Amino acid sequence: MTCEAAVAWGPGQPFSMEQIRVQPPQKLEVRIKILFTTICHTDLCAWEGQNESQRVYPRIFGHEASGVVESVGESVEDMEEGDHVLTIFHGECGECTYCKSKTTNLCTKFRVDPSQSVMRNDGKTRFLTQDGKPIYHFLNASTFSEYTVLDSACVVKINPKASLNRMILLSCCISTGFGSVINVANIHQGSTVAVFGLGAVGLAVILGAKTRGASKIIGIDINDDKCTKGQTLGMTNFINPRDLKTPLHEKIRDMTEGGVDFSFECCGNLDVLREAFLSTHDGWGKTVLLGIHPTPRMLPLHPMELFEGRTITGSVFGGFKGKTQLPRFVDHYMHTDELKLDEFITHELPFNKIDQAFELLIHGKSLRCLLHL
Amino acid sequence: MTCEAAVAWGPGQPFSMEQIRVQPPQKLEVRIKILFTTICHTDLCAWEGQNESQRVYPRIFGHEASGVVESVGESVEDMEEGDHVLTIFHGECGECTYCKSKTTNLCTKFRVDPSQSVMRNDGKTRFLTQDGKPIYHFLNASTFSEYTVLDSACVVKINPKASLNRMILLSCCISTGFGSVINVANIHQGSTVAVFGLGAVGLAVILGAKTRGASKIIGIDINDDKCTKGQTLGMTNFINPRDLKTPLHEKIRDMTEGGVDFSFECCGNLDVLREAFLSTHDGWGKTVLLGIHPTPRMLPLHPMELFEGRTITGSVFGGFKGKTQLPRFVDHYMHTDELKLDEFITHELPFNKIDQAFELLIHGKSLRCLLHL
Repeated sequence: MTCEAAVAWGPGQPFSMEQIRVQPPQKLEVRIKILFTTICHTDLCAWEGQNESQRVYPRIFGHEASGVVESVGESVEDMEEGDHVLTIFHGECGECTYCKSKTTNLCTKFRVDPSQSVMRNDGKTRFLTQDGKPIYHFLNASTFSEYTVLDSACVVKINPKASLNRMILLSCCISTGFGSVINVANIHQGSTVAVFGLGAVGLAVILGAKTRGASKIIGIDINDDKCTKGQTLGMTNFINPRDLKTPLHEKIRDMTEGGVDFSFECCGNLDVLREAFLSTHDGWGKTVLLGIHPTPRMLPLHPMELFEGRTITGSVFGGFKGKTQLPRFVDHYMHTDELKLDEFITHELPFNKIDQAFELLIHGKSLRCLLHL
Repeated sequence: MTCEAAVAWGPGQPFSMEQIRVQPPQKLEVRIKILFTTICHTDLCAWEGQNESQRVYPRIFGHEASGVVESVGESVEDMEEGDHVLTIFHGECGECTYCKSKTTNLCTKFRVDPSQSVMRNDGKTRFLTQDGKPIYHFLNASTFSEYTVLDSACVVKINPKASLNRMILLSCCISTGFGSVINVANIHQGSTVAVFGLGAVGLAVILGAKTRGASKIIGIDINDDKCTKGQTLGMTNFINPRDLKTPLHEKIRDMTEGGVDFSFECCGNLDVLREAFLSTHDGWGKTVLLGIHPTPRMLPLHPMELFEGRTITGSVFGGFKGKTQLPRFVDHYMHTDELKLDEFITHELPFNKIDQAFELLIHGKSLRCLLHL
């Protein structure tokens, strides 16, 4: 079939809106009609070509999306045409040792891998230019296209009564932030929390902490404009580190009788990571790492500091096993306003204004700009 | 009172066996007649003065010991003259936020601190030379003396029927190693385990893993002589890294379908620590840090490596809350041979042969040399 897609032809180049050919889904693959997609910092970094080894063009970016199944390949039994679905960049095959373990949401075959650019079935792409040349895939998804083909391990069927223009956020940012709180940190009522970096993921952490009954939720950002949104979602205190004369972790320790129970690093900066680590209470403080760190620098922590009882752990997709757990998560929240999804969608634009949506994100004007296809 | 002690007058200098004066215990302090003491690598490092900031002389080292209460200071209610006790370098006041938390065995006031060299009550020492000059304390204990004074938070009363010449090992090495397995890692039946460094602590880890029903226990040491002792305690496989042509973690991953569930670093070497981390299975592997790292180098781990689901945590005194938990531990094991304490005591000498006992440890000839006072 032929459809419109936003194709990236080189690092940081404006998107080319063009007609492409989309192949049928092969075994255990699904072809989806994308209805809504948004842009996340991971798309931005990849589009800019920040990581040289991952530069593959032409490519279709995008990984946060919702849509409807158009057709399914051989052996796909859990979905059929017309099903409402979310894409997930961090798949779940359901069969491997990891998927069968309760302790991890990694999957042998479909875990997130930014360098993966072809389908695993045959090492080829399902996107072609009009003259038959391959257009590469991105992050198990490639949602900047009216139609896309994914492994069924990366497609989650959800309740058809849920709003696809809001539940789309569970495709990445809400699951990543909220899930880090409930699955990875597993914070308890009365916990104290510090969130470093108030983008969509950091704000989703605040939301999760509020939902779990945290007693103090400190938001940290160098942009004062983030304060209001944070407060709307449950933040109790805001710190702009540029206003401080003392180290940030000392300020936080002063505010919390020795440190927070949990800190979340959501900005991908190693100096911030160290502050996040030191901001937790010794003896039991836990730091959850969500930010991406494209740096050769190693962890700025001394081994002896681990003897003070602070721990650090990484979180991918908020610890969710996407296909198993997200449908229930959707069911639980579709009739409430607890997830406050409206707060995260600051802009809406037609798909062909994708360049404008990137500009909004680059300049920190938007949290999520919903693109309508 | 006057008694004999092994006084260190400078870094690495032979001990001076001399008569010293020991003051009475003050409020919440206890004076103990030491019956048995041993030497641990921490004593060795401190005696050698490896850490410049901790060089304080004259000083009485030693922290693994058992004995009998000689007298108690004001307000000590849980012990009296004649009680059988163990010293612990990592105290438990029972009153602070940490002691009241189930999540940590740190104590605000009495946690291990190698730079602490005086009593906390008055900032003075309870040891004096014959001409009245202070002799400094070490690690909340100072057990290389016929009599010593400790904070009662650092003294554990145990069942008088337990053998003091064996239960002494719970004062440090067995608790540190065995406790790391049962309290910190909390390994389960069938777990796979790798132990890096087969000194007394590493061997105690093997023992703990065996007791918990680990299915595979891989011991790693550059000294082949450690193999037999490891096997006696439950080790199933031995690796001398010098015999390998491939990286150690690759060898271990090959032996364990992708990596062990738990690894324990017991040698205080950062390159080994990295191997221990990489030897665990991605998704759920946990590395427990027991070794002391007196280096300015930071952790040799990249932040993105945390996204592979491996975690790392420090363990102090095996996670035991000494005063609360050790008495029950003693009761549980005093009638069994499960702890195999005899295996750890490779030598026995009279107290005045302490220099000889140090030599044995320095040359890797002994695990524990029991000094009789």
